[in-house]
Amino acid sequence: MVTQSQLLVPTLGPCTIPSPLANRHASKRRFMADDTRVLFEVEYRAGAPIDERSLEKSGPREKIFFEPAKTKAAIVTCGGLCPGINNVIRNLYYTLKANYGVQSVIGIRNGYEGLNPAQGEAPCELTDSMVEHIHHRGGTVLGTSRGPQDPVVTVNFLESMGVDILFTIGGDGTQRGAHAIAAEVTRRGAKIAVVGIPKTIDNDIKFCYQTFGFLTAVAEAEKVIDRAHIEATSMENGVGLVKLMGREAGFIAAAATIASGEVNFTLIPEAPFELAGPRGFLPKLAHRLRERKHAVVVVAEGAGQEHLADGQEEYDASGNRKLDDIGPFLKGKIEAYCREVSLPVGVKYFDPSYFIRSAHADAADSLLTEQLSRHAVHAAMAGKTDMFVGLWHNHTVHVPLALNTGEKKRLETDRDMWAAVLAITGQEDW
Amino acid sequence: MVTQSQLLVPTLGPCTIPSPLANRHASKRRFMADDTRVLFEVEYRAGAPIDERSLEKSGPREKIFFEPAKTKAAIVTCGGLCPGINNVIRNLYYTLKANYGVQSVIGIRNGYEGLNPAQGEAPCELTDSMVEHIHHRGGTVLGTSRGPQDPVVTVNFLESMGVDILFTIGGDGTQRGAHAIAAEVTRRGAKIAVVGIPKTIDNDIKFCYQTFGFLTAVAEAEKVIDRAHIEATSMENGVGLVKLMGREAGFIAAAATIASGEVNFTLIPEAPFELAGPRGFLPKLAHRLRERKHAVVVVAEGAGQEHLADGQEEYDASGNRKLDDIGPFLKGKIEAYCREVSLPVGVKYFDPSYFIRSAHADAADSLLTEQLSRHAVHAAMAGKTDMFVGLWHNHTVHVPLALNTGEKKRLETDRDMWAAVLAITGQEDW
Amino acid sequence: MVTQSQLLVPTLGPCTIPSPLANRHASKRRFMADDTRVLFEVEYRAGAPIDERSLEKSGPREKIFFEPAKTKAAIVTCGGLCPGINNVIRNLYYTLKANYGVQSVIGIRNGYEGLNPAQGEAPCELTDSMVEHIHHRGGTVLGTSRGPQDPVVTVNFLESMGVDILFTIGGDGTQRGAHAIAAEVTRRGAKIAVVGIPKTIDNDIKFCYQTFGFLTAVAEAEKVIDRAHIEATSMENGVGLVKLMGREAGFIAAAATIASGEVNFTLIPEAPFELAGPRGFLPKLAHRLRERKHAVVVVAEGAGQEHLADGQEEYDASGNRKLDDIGPFLKGKIEAYCREVSLPVGVKYFDPSYFIRSAHADAADSLLTEQLSRHAVHAAMAGKTDMFVGLWHNHTVHVPLALNTGEKKRLETDRDMWAAVLAITGQEDW
Amino acid sequence: MVTQSQLLVPTLGPCTIPSPLANRHASKRRFMADDTRVLFEVEYRAGAPIDERSLEKSGPREKIFFEPAKTKAAIVTCGGLCPGINNVIRNLYYTLKANYGVQSVIGIRNGYEGLNPAQGEAPCELTDSMVEHIHHRGGTVLGTSRGPQDPVVTVNFLESMGVDILFTIGGDGTQRGAHAIAAEVTRRGAKIAVVGIPKTIDNDIKFCYQTFGFLTAVAEAEKVIDRAHIEATSMENGVGLVKLMGREAGFIAAAATIASGEVNFTLIPEAPFELAGPRGFLPKLAHRLRERKHAVVVVAEGAGQEHLADGQEEYDASGNRKLDDIGPFLKGKIEAYCREVSLPVGVKYFDPSYFIRSAHADAADSLLTEQLSRHAVHAAMAGKTDMFVGLWHNHTVHVPLALNTGEKKRLETDRDMWAAVLAITGQEDW
Repeated sequence: MVTQSQLLVPTLGPCTIPSPLANRHASKRRFMADDTRVLFEVEYRAGAPIDERSLEKSGPREKIFFEPAKTKAAIVTCGGLCPGINNVIRNLYYTLKANYGVQSVIGIRNGYEGLNPAQGEAPCELTDSMVEHIHHRGGTVLGTSRGPQDPVVTVNFLESMGVDILFTIGGDGTQRGAHAIAAEVTRRGAKIAVVGIPKTIDNDIKFCYQTFGFLTAVAEAEKVIDRAHIEATSMENGVGLVKLMGREAGFIAAAATIASGEVNFTLIPEAPFELAGPRGFLPKLAHRLRERKHAVVVVAEGAGQEHLADGQEEYDASGNRKLDDIGPFLKGKIEAYCREVSLPVGVKYFDPSYFIRSAHADAADSLLTEQLSRHAVHAAMAGKTDMFVGLWHNHTVHVPLALNTGEKKRLETDRDMWAAVLAITGQEDW
Repeated sequence: MVTQSQLLVPTLGPCTIPSPLANRHASKRRFMADDTRVLFEVEYRAGAPIDERSLEKSGPREKIFFEPAKTKAAIVTCGGLCPGINNVIRNLYYTLKANYGVQSVIGIRNGYEGLNPAQGEAPCELTDSMVEHIHHRGGTVLGTSRGPQDPVVTVNFLESMGVDILFTIGGDGTQRGAHAIAAEVTRRGAKIAVVGIPKTIDNDIKFCYQTFGFLTAVAEAEKVIDRAHIEATSMENGVGLVKLMGREAGFIAAAATIASGEVNFTLIPEAPFELAGPRGFLPKLAHRLRERKHAVVVVAEGAGQEHLADGQEEYDASGNRKLDDIGPFLKGKIEAYCREVSLPVGVKYFDPSYFIRSAHADAADSLLTEQLSRHAVHAAMAGKTDMFVGLWHNHTVHVPLALNTGEKKRLETDRDMWAAVLAITGQEDW
Repeated sequence: MVTQSQLLVPTLGPCTIPSPLANRHASKRRFMADDTRVLFEVEYRAGAPIDERSLEKSGPREKIFFEPAKTKAAIVTCGGLCPGINNVIRNLYYTLKANYGVQSVIGIRNGYEGLNPAQGEAPCELTDSMVEHIHHRGGTVLGTSRGPQDPVVTVNFLESMGVDILFTIGGDGTQRGAHAIAAEVTRRGAKIAVVGIPKTIDNDIKFCYQTFGFLTAVAEAEKVIDRAHIEATSMENGVGLVKLMGREAGFIAAAATIASGEVNFTLIPEAPFELAGPRGFLPKLAHRLRERKHAVVVVAEGAGQEHLADGQEEYDASGNRKLDDIGPFLKGKIEAYCREVSLPVGVKYFDPSYFIRSAHADAADSLLTEQLSRHAVHAAMAGKTDMFVGLWHNHTVHVPLALNTGEKKRLETDRDMWAAVLAITGQEDW
Repeated sequence: MVTQSQLLVPTLGPCTIPSPLANRHASKRRFMADDTRVLFEVEYRAGAPIDERSLEKSGPREKIFFEPAKTKAAIVTCGGLCPGINNVIRNLYYTLKANYGVQSVIGIRNGYEGLNPAQGEAPCELTDSMVEHIHHRGGTVLGTSRGPQDPVVTVNFLESMGVDILFTIGGDGTQRGAHAIAAEVTRRGAKIAVVGIPKTIDNDIKFCYQTFGFLTAVAEAEKVIDRAHIEATSMENGVGLVKLMGREAGFIAAAATIASGEVNFTLIPEAPFELAGPRGFLPKLAHRLRERKHAVVVVAEGAGQEHLADGQEEYDASGNRKLDDIGPFLKGKIEAYCREVSLPVGVKYFDPSYFIRSAHADAADSLLTEQLSRHAVHAAMAGKTDMFVGLWHNHTVHVPLALNTGEKKRLETDRDMWAAVLAITGQEDW
């Protein structure tokens, strides 16, 4: 269990410089006192003691650490694509330049690679005209790549460039890399703030109940499921089989199932299932086909790995375990089983992952990215470091990077979201 | 200030019937103990005492009040259109029928009118094939209307039809009507649960930090603003003027501004503004045109009424004050002012309200409607009454209808959302 | 009736320069011989003589008039917005630069205004990075305005800038202006090609059976009609009333009606109608409401002007007659009539014109704009002038500007499109 | 070369019954005289003789063959999905019932299978409420399947059901089946009209310059290409590889390339290419990556089969040759080649075929399906048979099924569409 002291966020030093936002805001109440907290737990049983742990609430501080006119910020985007990265870049840029008036914002090219001058392309100075329209497009205009760099090399580079703040947009691997950078900064006694904005389309980072890009991904996935439903219902015994993102967590598969309302079986990593046998997926699918003549199946890419595993584990450059491909495997199994039980079947397989992740952020994610980015700037300008901006009970909070230990957030199958999936699909617990 | 006792929810009586969900759910943890609470306040200053007020958390109870096989539920939809109403109808229906196995679900036609046999159309029995595809369409398949009915007539009718549960989908007027019905039920000692699902595209109902349809409305509004931006930038001194919903609260205008990132002036009811004078809107707009040759202005329908009011107040059938039309008024004022200061200008006016409110729910709202509807059924089956399902710190909770006293939730201009609008538009506090 | 000699297109002189396309194209057959023609009429009655009139077919010529490396082209966009203008700009640019290798392409700012140095902004040199992404956005990046300029001033300016080719993107007013410019060029014996690409969202230019932007407008209008249908069916006696573009021609209203399949009454300028009386629109609408409880009405902006006219005619800067607003007029008439016959009614009025015209081109219009633009460049490089690129029996052709005499193409109510509207709406001929 | 006599359409007999449309149409001119023709060729070289071959123009005839009140029509949908099938069903139904007043319209289930009572499901009687909303959804509500049935069995079944008209919606295989049915009808001297509406998403049926569903497919494909472009540009040396439909004809690949404007290489069956060597695709791609750091490649499914073929040919139930999968093959080749030349590369592969074909018809295709369906009904009611409704120089015409000999329409690489692809991609002829 996380202790209160683990929830405290490091700072670079005392804040003595009046925020330039004071000139713009009529109301003092828009500043957030530094001792404002958000309770870690809001749910409790009547009569039980209230859990007093809390997280630091983000927001603009009246006094800040960095002097804007002398401050240089850098932005780096890492890992796989996710709707909203360009929004984050644009919002960071405008908040830094137009609101705080910082001197310079540079864009690191192609992920952490761009922080190693021996390997990557040189950074670019961001300008109004470069970022003006980028939120209408998916992807990242800065480019991305996978994998870490040596923190010593990185901090050398940041110091040589005169960077005061580094914003790291990426998943848990990226934020572990950011933590290593922050540690190297501390070791040197340098004054560089390292502030993360968590990016995971799978929504599997702890201390963020929802990450940007997730709702857009669900919306895009819903459209694909709708098409799979059309394929399935336009022939006899049609099966629409949709593989969705979700390496270790089934959030997209579950949420897209709920949003769609047309799915009959949802398979996620957190709910292992059997293929054959009385409670097995294949006989249940065959039963459904006999009853209703069609079915829609959604499978998260990390589901059912137990049926595929061959004892060997491989990892990609981001340190994510490589998965065998459950989609074609399941397609083959369905076809083989139906052949076996003499049930003619037509399986239409959809693998829309790149299509989904390269979408631009929808309005809900535009709102979320704006909030996270603006608060990341407030945190960094106030000298907060070695942290990311999390979302907690609908409040933005400061989360120490040290808490990001590599364990992923997973869908709890005894909570509401999975109950919704069971209610809607009619499938039983496996 | 709301007291703890005001936060308690009435019930029809003790729950003695085992929930049929027990057969479907492997895990007991999916049931929610009746004494689970959600803190009213989660934000506090370090050192200050924690506010212990709390709301009742919603969710399936292990024991329920109504015997499903003998239960008849009715659904009524009232007031203006809002994305997601059909999702609510569909989700209520499936949860009641497929999950709880209730005997019958009827649809009341055309709002409260349909609860008065002297005035309205007879209800219809809902079936699978009727509701199967309705979530893909906006509007309400049951029809809607404005205005209340005599609670005595209504309860007579409900009793004559053998209705055990009435779900009321509507705004604060509708929920006040529901409260009156619940009071009449209590007066008679009848056992009819009255459970609301708040519907307000303006997002202005208290105790729901976000209502369904709101995000869809923002997404649609963002598209309109984008078009207004195109009109404004395709000519010299073009002004795209967009009127959005928001009679007493500027949430849609503010959120669409943030999501869009292209708006220069956002006018909402909560932030009164001057037209002329050094801090006035018109000179500032003219200044912007001279500097940048185009501008995008978003105005909530309830904004600037102080400039229009003529002393007379009229009200519509729902009890909402009729507003003068700020859109054409502002268009005229802009044109007149620019003529006066010899600035050629082209104002393109957009009034997309009906277009926006008749959209179908996007994925985010599909998720929200599913959650609210399912929890409304859980509440009703457990005999909760005179309440609606609210959303609080991202938890669904039971909110007593008695708390809905007619005061609307308004955008607090000294909190984060308005700060975001000021940051993005660059406009100052008026 | 048009004579064959009127169908001949002027040229600046003999083509003696080998086309640079020869290096790129393996096949000679991709060049179009200059004497290739497209028949004016393809429909005939068996036995009748075939009409031998024909238009000049467009396409790349093996020999061209202008020497690319010394050629400077200018692009001007005039009149109201229409989906696809940016595509035309982009395609003209790339065909000129990347395919022909011309020296320079400049963009005239804000319509013909930009051809008058005393009045408009200076032109800008177009570059790859300026036009790269513009086809994803509606509007025109060059800006637009209404109204002509003195051809003498214009040609002075073109000569002073060293412009060899002027592409005029605009409606019939713009093309009449282009014709005047071409006449002034001829008078001076200058060698400037003037080539138009017709732009009219209303699809009302003769010799183009379909103009770019029209299909996108129909697609956008269909969405609006769908929302109007939802409003109409979500209440008792709901009427969705949609005003669409179409000043003198009802093509958008008719096509959107057909595409939608949900419209009950379509009112266009070409089919005058009565309001009252046995064949009148209002009694028929009331009849429909009594039978079916809802109705969708589409009205072109130029329809029913006979009911509004007050004897005074006004014209805008493009020379288009100003219309009274049929939309609100019709809304008022419907409400008044229903009050009179004691039929409660709710009219929801949609006026989406700016929303529609500022959309970006859909795929069909992207194809059309690419074809028209490329062929406009082929024509201009071959020294064709005083012409626009038309679409005739699905072939692109050269149309002399002299044929554009101000008479608009109108929907023929005794041909197929109006038959389709009658078939779908079930409305009778008025 | 097709002779004039081959262009003549069979009829069941003389038309003696006055069309019921006469009552609805004020204008006689809306009827089409039976001897109205559309020229086969409209393009000619000045001075050359005009080709006098012609096709029969479709449209409502004043006298018809079938007595509506006694007429029963059947609709069958065959082969793969294509946007617009439901529109065709809906439009056939409404034209038959609402305009002509035929007695009954039945839907054959699951393709030709449903015309064999020993094998398929029984037909269903179509009603207003069944077809009302189906045009908003992709797929086919009647179901589909591949493969023919014995024409003797089929005609036995049609006679037993009392069917007078059979509408066959399908590709060239389906229309060959329809031709066999018509032959069997003729052999018996039965009076059953067989009228086809060509359906091929690949746009590869002769005598139809554009088939329904094609433009929708191009629009959906354009969106996928846009996402592939985003993936390609969000990393160093990214390649977006998109496989599109097009077994024997590259129309979708070519048109999507033109509409998108972002493709660098387009591979289609009609333009064979080399992989290696100085003019090979792989070295050219590597060159592009070195110059521009990203590339987008579109490949039609039937392209490059020469690189895959293993001497064995297999066919599916519709008689289409089974293709090896060029997509993964090409991905592998690109990765191997880049490894060989030490060029780091990231290939993102998109295979959106099912997603595209299950879309609903966009507005352009809604217009086309309406036109084709209405004219198919006019033809059938006038006793035309053994024909399909084609689109020729933008006119709907009657095309004898006997002309559909199995040869597909292919993209002519020396004509305009391929010239456009070369112009836009900058690729040379291979």
